Amino acid sequence: MSAPEPPTARRSLVPLDLRRANLGLTLRWLRDHGPRSRASLANELELTRSTVSTLVAELVERGLVREGAVQRSAIGRPGTAVELDGRAVCGLGAEVNVNHISLAALDLTGTVVAERKLALDARELDEVQVVDQLVGLVRETTDLLAASGTTPVGLTVGVAGLVDRERDVLTFGPNLGWRDVALGELVRGRLEASYPVEIDNEGNLAATAEATPGDPERRDILVIFGEVGVGGGIVADGRLLRGRQGYAGEFGHMIVEPEGRRCGCGRRGCWETVSGLGALLETAADPDDPVRGAEMPLEARLTELNRRADLGDARTLAALAQVGSWVGVGAAVLTNALNPAAIVLSGYYAMVGHHMRPAIEAALRDGVLAPDAGGTRVELSHLGFLAAVRGGALASLETVFTDPTTVPRRTETATPIPSATGKEQYA
Amino acid sequence: MSAPEPPTARRSLVPLDLRRANLGLTLRWLRDHGPRSRASLANELELTRSTVSTLVAELVERGLVREGAVQRSAIGRPGTAVELDGRAVCGLGAEVNVNHISLAALDLTGTVVAERKLALDARELDEVQVVDQLVGLVRETTDLLAASGTTPVGLTVGVAGLVDRERDVLTFGPNLGWRDVALGELVRGRLEASYPVEIDNEGNLAATAEATPGDPERRDILVIFGEVGVGGGIVADGRLLRGRQGYAGEFGHMIVEPEGRRCGCGRRGCWETVSGLGALLETAADPDDPVRGAEMPLEARLTELNRRADLGDARTLAALAQVGSWVGVGAAVLTNALNPAAIVLSGYYAMVGHHMRPAIEAALRDGVLAPDAGGTRVELSHLGFLAAVRGGALASLETVFTDPTTVPRRTETATPIPSATGKEQYA
Repeated sequence: MSAPEPPTARRSLVPLDLRRANLGLTLRWLRDHGPRSRASLANELELTRSTVSTLVAELVERGLVREGAVQRSAIGRPGTAVELDGRAVCGLGAEVNVNHISLAALDLTGTVVAERKLALDARELDEVQVVDQLVGLVRETTDLLAASGTTPVGLTVGVAGLVDRERDVLTFGPNLGWRDVALGELVRGRLEASYPVEIDNEGNLAATAEATPGDPERRDILVIFGEVGVGGGIVADGRLLRGRQGYAGEFGHMIVEPEGRRCGCGRRGCWETVSGLGALLETAADPDDPVRGAEMPLEARLTELNRRADLGDARTLAALAQVGSWVGVGAAVLTNALNPAAIVLSGYYAMVGHHMRPAIEAALRDGVLAPDAGGTRVELSHLGFLAAVRGGALASLETVFTDPTTVPRRTETATPIPSATGKEQYA
Repeated sequence: MSAPEPPTARRSLVPLDLRRANLGLTLRWLRDHGPRSRASLANELELTRSTVSTLVAELVERGLVREGAVQRSAIGRPGTAVELDGRAVCGLGAEVNVNHISLAALDLTGTVVAERKLALDARELDEVQVVDQLVGLVRETTDLLAASGTTPVGLTVGVAGLVDRERDVLTFGPNLGWRDVALGELVRGRLEASYPVEIDNEGNLAATAEATPGDPERRDILVIFGEVGVGGGIVADGRLLRGRQGYAGEFGHMIVEPEGRRCGCGRRGCWETVSGLGALLETAADPDDPVRGAEMPLEARLTELNRRADLGDARTLAALAQVGSWVGVGAAVLTNALNPAAIVLSGYYAMVGHHMRPAIEAALRDGVLAPDAGGTRVELSHLGFLAAVRGGALASLETVFTDPTTVPRRTETATPIPSATGKEQYA
């Protein structure tokens, strides 16, 4: 029998690793639980007051934490709260989809500090052309952020298709028509950035964005992300379920109608042929209707469908009910298997899902064995089309929470200024 | 903001809890990695030699560990290995299904020390009658085990249906025809045992039994457990995925054929209507064929089907291919969602699945988006009908691995015998 790995919980940390781990722990704690005094941190993290002071001082030097408001507690003296400082660094998330490329930058607090979207028809372009468009968006954005002193710590590119993260390759993007594209290498080569670039499936990233850390209602969720294709992710016990090769979450290719329509993947009757954006637009409008055309931005087309539905237009309402019913059929299959606390509808569903909800819930009641659909709630994402890019940016920020020492101390780069007191000050 | 829970990894342990945790850690390590010297244990668990000696001595006193063979290593002196001692305690696992009740007792090493099975038609009986049959089986078995000095530490009853473990209730067992049965309380009341009794879904238990701790090939698996109904469990990252109310794994009620046959749950076209035991027997044999009748034990009926298939009987082979194809259709839906390393076919599939495998694999190739079905292997369980009861017994044993002090020291119960040397000895 070979020598086994010791269990993680007991693996000893050398002092440097321990400091890094405690810096990361403190930073993550402030993210998940909000501003608090050093005394509260010491108490909650079971560290000494002096250790917490040292950790906070280092996080301040790295520009990741700042002094906040004075906090009064029921007992003891008032203390100054410390809180995340969003200004120094940001994570970048991008999305490559069939009809658009998108980018978002999020600061350490999760606030969106930049957002860009470019409509295109990826099927008319080759992968280098698409990546060059993306690289242009990234450069414009990071130049603007640099002007306000914000440094990107990483870029995560979500893509509509099967992503083998180990091989750094998009194995198959049925709607993009791409096979075995070394997308990570391609973006890194064209972008020539100093920060790491990773690729992932857009549905996985959308799911990551919905799984709020620390929220018990978001520990077991099923995220269904609909655009032209339909995918998503499974969050089980707070963690994204990736599966053997990272291909979990390909819900759109569950076959629900064996003799049904031809899918972008080459087969018939995949769930996305009846629940994707194409199915809705084709059912709701004639080919010459502007909501069908790529000339109008997608958000505007969906806003127009909502307007018609609100006015009681029968064809629009019937289309939303029909597609909603199919969404529910697939959601019921997945709910029997996973019994999630919530099904979070993301992507285009976030915009029009309120009109689909009765049909979805009816299909869930019909299709799930457990009474009351096993307690599974149907929710609409608040992130909409931003879900995947937001998830990508959050994934990029993870490196900072894992090891805050990857962000340089300000004093390491700043120029000392002689001061009147004779002590050095740092700009 | 309310005071948050401190992170588990940093929660301090009072000395007694620490000792319990280390006893459990040592016991689990010996289970997962086999016999080894105290020196190896100290090294691998990062504990001192003297701590390990104290822990091992206590585990020996509780009858959970014993001295094994002398081990010679490349360096250092030969040492005596210590290993799990299976004799003192056992876990009990039971299964309540439509056409049988079963029981297994496993010792601490996972070896089956008793197994019983009783054919019955649960639909002809009420739940008290079924439970009384089960209680009879349990008593007979524990009486026999007591004679050889083995004490049960718990009983876990798997049942074919939705189990709400929090409420301790079988919510709905479609094939049993049971609704809202307080099964845990019922078994406890009739059995009057000194050990804890828990209930769980049989598919969850079958999945638990397949997820060998420490085996990387068994960290992400999908277990499909077929009897009259079809269920199973999802193991993600080494842990059973239970979902919101513990209802995950109800694969049998995914609707795959909307206009199909009526299911035990009242709906049409559930996966189990085309992939369960009933579908196979009805397709393979006429109503008066003995393989259809409950008079013949199920194993014998499946052995007869295998015999016919091996002889090339066209009807039998066609039935196995047809049902296998349906198994593959559902397996493909789940594989698109979960990308498991392996699909483990358990229950009746374990006996006849080798004849179904080509049809299952073909349906997987057709139905899974990822090339090569995402690398997912199809495997037949080695546990067969024993899977759920074995998983139940393993679940019962978990209490000992979590806290070995739940097993009394032998000296606490034994009678001291005066010895010739004047020191007390213990029987």
